[in-house]
This record gives sequence, C-alpha cells and structure tokens, in this order.
Amino acid sequence: MRIPVPLRHAYRLLNHGPTTLITTAHAGRRNVMAAAWVMPLDFNPPRFVAVIAADTFTRELLEASGQCAVMLPTTEQLDLTLAVGSCSGRDTDKFAAWNLTVDPGTQSEAPLLHGCAAWLECSLCREPELQQRYDLCVLDCHHAWVDDRLWADGCWRFPAAGPRTIHHSKGGLFHPTGDARQAGRPVGGA
Amino acid sequence: MRIPVPLRHAYRLLNHGPTTLITTAHAGRRNVMAAAWVMPLDFNPPRFVAVIAADTFTRELLEASGQCAVMLPTTEQLDLTLAVGSCSGRDTDKFAAWNLTVDPGTQSEAPLLHGCAAWLECSLCREPELQQRYDLCVLDCHHAWVDDRLWADGCWRFPAAGPRTIHHSKGGLFHPTGDARQAGRPVGGA
Repeated sequence: MRIPVPLRHAYRLLNHGPTTLITTAHAGRRNVMAAAWVMPLDFNPPRFVAVIAADTFTRELLEASGQCAVMLPTTEQLDLTLAVGSCSGRDTDKFAAWNLTVDPGTQSEAPLLHGCAAWLECSLCREPELQQRYDLCVLDCHHAWVDDRLWADGCWRFPAAGPRTIHHSKGGLFHPTGDARQAGRPVGGA
Repeated sequence: MRIPVPLRHAYRLLNHGPTTLITTAHAGRRNVMAAAWVMPLDFNPPRFVAVIAADTFTRELLEASGQCAVMLPTTEQLDLTLAVGSCSGRDTDKFAAWNLTVDPGTQSEAPLLHGCAAWLECSLCREPELQQRYDLCVLDCHHAWVDDRLWADGCWRFPAAGPRTIHHSKGGLFHPTGDARQAGRPVGGA
C-alpha cells in the first residue's frame, strides 16, 4: 500500500542511490524514462538533482510543465526499467506499449506508476544555465510516498522475499539493494 | 589488487549509487570524509558531481588544492565510514586516529585509502556559483582503479563471500550491493 512519507524523511528514499523512473506530462502527452543519475541535494525541504539529457522527450515535457514524478522501480520491474530506458517517448506511447497501470498525480499530470517502491512528486527549480551546461535538473519535492511493505521506522526494510529497490550497473545489469547492516557508533579515535 | 579501469568505464564504478569516501590534502594537511551524495555527470571523459557542504574541512582543502580522491568503502569498512563522517578533520587527524593505511596519490597529495573497492582521482572543475548555491562540486576524473577481486568484464562482480560496496540509508545504516541480475532485452512494445 502507498503510504505518505514525511517530507523531512523524503531524502532517505533516494539516499542509497537507487535507479529511478521519471514520469512527465504536458498538453495531453506524457512519458516515462529510466534515470540512474538522481540523488538528494538537500534534506528539508527535500530537494533532488537529476541528470536528464537535453535531447530527451522527458526533458522537453519537464521544462514545459515544470513538474515530474520520480519513482523507484523494484526487482519485479527490471525488464520494464530497461525497456523504458531504451526507446524515446517521442516515437512510442510507453504507457500503452507496456500496458502500464497508473494513478493520476496529485499536484500535476505526471502519473504515478503502480508497482514501484516509492513515489516523489517534484517541481522543477528552474536553473537554465545548470540545465543547459550539465543537463542537471534541480527538483523540489512536495509529496513522497513509499510501499508500506518496504518501510519501517523511517527507513527501508526489505523482507527476505519480495521486491527491492534496484541499482543500475550497465546495459540492463541491476543490483538489488542488500539487507541493512548497522555500523558501530564511533567510540574512540576522535 | 588495485588495477586500472579504462576511463571510459569509470562512470560504472559509481553508476549503482554507492556511498563514497573523499580524501583531500593541501599545504601539509589532509582529510577524509564520507559522502553519499555523489553520482556520475558524464561518461567520457568521466565527470562526477558531489554534494560537499561549504562548512566542511574537505571543501576547504578541495577548493584550495583543486584535487581529491573519491573511494568506495566496503562492507568491511562500515564502522570507519560512519566514523569519518561523524567528526571534522579540523579537530582530528582522522588518518592517525583510525590508523588508516594509504598509498600516495598519483596526481595530487590526496591519499588513496587501503581496503576500498575502487579509487577515482579527480580534479575540481571550478564552478563558483554551483558550489556556493548548492554545494555541488563538479569533479573531472583522471585516473580510476578497482579491486580486481570485485570486477569482471567491465562491471562489478561480487563473490558470495567477501567485501561489497555499500549504500547509506541513514545514521550508519548501510545496505550492501546485492547480486547482479540481468534484465531481459525489450522485445516488443516499442
């Protein structure tokens, strides 16, 4: 079940460096792409930064609408993640092509994909020079949700069996997120 | 054993979103800090972007020297990673405090820590506005190495037993990188 995450904890959804899916919509057209280069930029209010190439349809819709949704696909969506990262939404309605089920966005038309581990609704903090020079898009997060089966006490908790977030290596090779281990608190040295 | 990685593959060392350690040195002083918000920015030549807070000693040494080394700590370095991320190098010689063994850097004085999974020697691509406004530091990578036990055919390959790269969740809770899974190539839809 999709449950809200307090905004002060939203950075934790991306802190471990998972691969994402990004949806956008504008003037009756919509798209979804895969993006591995996304990370937190600030804690509270939560802000993220994503590399989105200038020639992508996602970038066009993001700049036109000023909105997007960032989702975390799971081990059950490996093929989908590779597929939507391997073609352009200019040529293909990816939602129809892969029969994707979505909920409408709450703050924009960018849809929320079913089956993901987390959902972040964001608006583009316009930085034309940063976008043009480095393809870096600064995203302010306004709503965050997580799959309640994967979250406990304000952090990820992945059951032994079941979906996990994924990390892209190269060419469709993904690493699921491993089981959490707590480091020992520093007791000396300093 | 530390073996070189071709620069065109260097982005793959960070593509899966692991936590890093960053070393810096200038005028006889040196430091090491933990940084989870580091990601690739471009493929070839490889370029990374890291969030390094303005008030850190690392930022001071990075801006003074224009150089740093980015390393990937492993599951065998959880306590160390938490520890060096929990105090300032202004107060503590962390290398002495935690008895760290290092190799000298090849292009700068920033030392290369023993026991890591990968090493990236970088220079700061100075972007004063980006640094001041967002704490974003653009890093050009000039040399890359990986632990040869963890790398095969140009990507990560973690044996069942043995060290793995790690992903920070919060407060010293880390997730090791899981075993790789290949997604199926898209065969329809598009």
